[in-house]
Amino acid sequence: MTFTQKLQKREKVVKSWLCVGLDSDYAKLSTVFRDKKYPQLAFNRWIIEQTHDLALAYKPNLAFYEARGTEGIHELELTMQYLAEHFPTIVTIADAKRADIDSTNSGYVKFLFDRLGFDAVTLHPYLGREALVPFLSRKDKGCIILCKTSNSGSGEFQDLRVGGKSQQLWMKVAAEVVGNWNQNSNCALVVGATYPKELAAVRTMVGEMPLLVPGVGAQGGSLREVLKAGLTTKRSGLIINASRGIIFAKDPRNEAEKMVQEMCSFR
Amino acid sequence: MTFTQKLQKREKVVKSWLCVGLDSDYAKLSTVFRDKKYPQLAFNRWIIEQTHDLALAYKPNLAFYEARGTEGIHELELTMQYLAEHFPTIVTIADAKRADIDSTNSGYVKFLFDRLGFDAVTLHPYLGREALVPFLSRKDKGCIILCKTSNSGSGEFQDLRVGGKSQQLWMKVAAEVVGNWNQNSNCALVVGATYPKELAAVRTMVGEMPLLVPGVGAQGGSLREVLKAGLTTKRSGLIINASRGIIFAKDPRNEAEKMVQEMCSFR
Repeated sequence: MTFTQKLQKREKVVKSWLCVGLDSDYAKLSTVFRDKKYPQLAFNRWIIEQTHDLALAYKPNLAFYEARGTEGIHELELTMQYLAEHFPTIVTIADAKRADIDSTNSGYVKFLFDRLGFDAVTLHPYLGREALVPFLSRKDKGCIILCKTSNSGSGEFQDLRVGGKSQQLWMKVAAEVVGNWNQNSNCALVVGATYPKELAAVRTMVGEMPLLVPGVGAQGGSLREVLKAGLTTKRSGLIINASRGIIFAKDPRNEAEKMVQEMCSFR
Repeated sequence: MTFTQKLQKREKVVKSWLCVGLDSDYAKLSTVFRDKKYPQLAFNRWIIEQTHDLALAYKPNLAFYEARGTEGIHELELTMQYLAEHFPTIVTIADAKRADIDSTNSGYVKFLFDRLGFDAVTLHPYLGREALVPFLSRKDKGCIILCKTSNSGSGEFQDLRVGGKSQQLWMKVAAEVVGNWNQNSNCALVVGATYPKELAAVRTMVGEMPLLVPGVGAQGGSLREVLKAGLTTKRSGLIINASRGIIFAKDPRNEAEKMVQEMCSFR
């Protein structure tokens, strides 16, 4: 099954666009978890146990695991094994934001797709399509390209007008990805919840392509605005990520439920 | 000592701009190394033993270690420990090509600078300066921003004309980095050897700023062209990387010596 098929299938079953960001920063874990042999795994299992019936996808950000070196990477491996064994229908996204020249990308492909078993990965567009072929040629896996990122300073380069037209760089990225990069129907784009106008514009440009939308909650994006701006005409196509707002809440399940209820009321 | 100071000091001692890329792809190692407990470490030690008196810097690309999961990351840790113990004056660059939103970058800062002890890291510019503050604020460490990359398709976005002027995106990146990002004098840029005209233009724009230049050898860049285009008026400012052309040559020392001799003849 391809990434897109798995995504569509899971969406039908779970009736939610919620992606839970497993940004399990060791420094923020309570001693209940820190005292365990595998603190990040234990925390992730606890979050997954509470949210698996609500989650379209899980998205660990690699930085929070690499911060602990080999131990952290090992706990990410164990988390992925746990998900594959117990919840194989839930989509998994490696928030790795990688991109190198082509021969080198093969190393990341091995790591993220083959060793860790992720369904999809986030990628920087700066090196262009040609460099990303080792990712893009994997028909079974998803390539989620950064388009308009959620951070407050994302406009520095992304908002520049390019080619002497009224087109900004993030629009050009969206246009290239939908027009030229998506030959295997395995591409998606990242657009921050903090930029709902841009999200609406990207949706118009890319048709049914899935959009990964971080920035709801802790970063200030509004779920309602994201739903209004980002859904396709078939009421689909979104992967809405919440990390800190769910996983470090007093009651993670309650926060996840609130988000899914708001999604349901919008359907 | 800061990255820039260490770089300048090492350059004076070694009289070479050679950076050896420790892209120690497991699949390409001979059985002599594969049969060892730590194949990548053993291979790296062998390369370092042959080249340490010629090398300004070593630059492992993270992809070749992550391809092997925790084992590979562990061998990278061991390689960095070996370098710190035996050759502490040689500059170390993590070719990681990272960049995330600011809080997340702190995880990569911990991993690459604090755990692994690298002097510098390569970074994507797409998210803008604001996102990279956790890297840029580390006055002791180097931030090497991708400007014009060596791959054949790098022009897709990097060559776009931005802001309605005759300025291309890679020029805008160079201008922002030298003008606004470099407040701690810890920035450098990546410009591919395969684009000597662009390299000359960047040198004109950025004064004395160090330039990391990959793409000599296997990728087709000419060392002579790089020296002509990239040196400062003080005959400094270059970190010229060769990976496959040295480390997978029959006689790595011989290849490294040939490069350094060509550099010397150019001084």
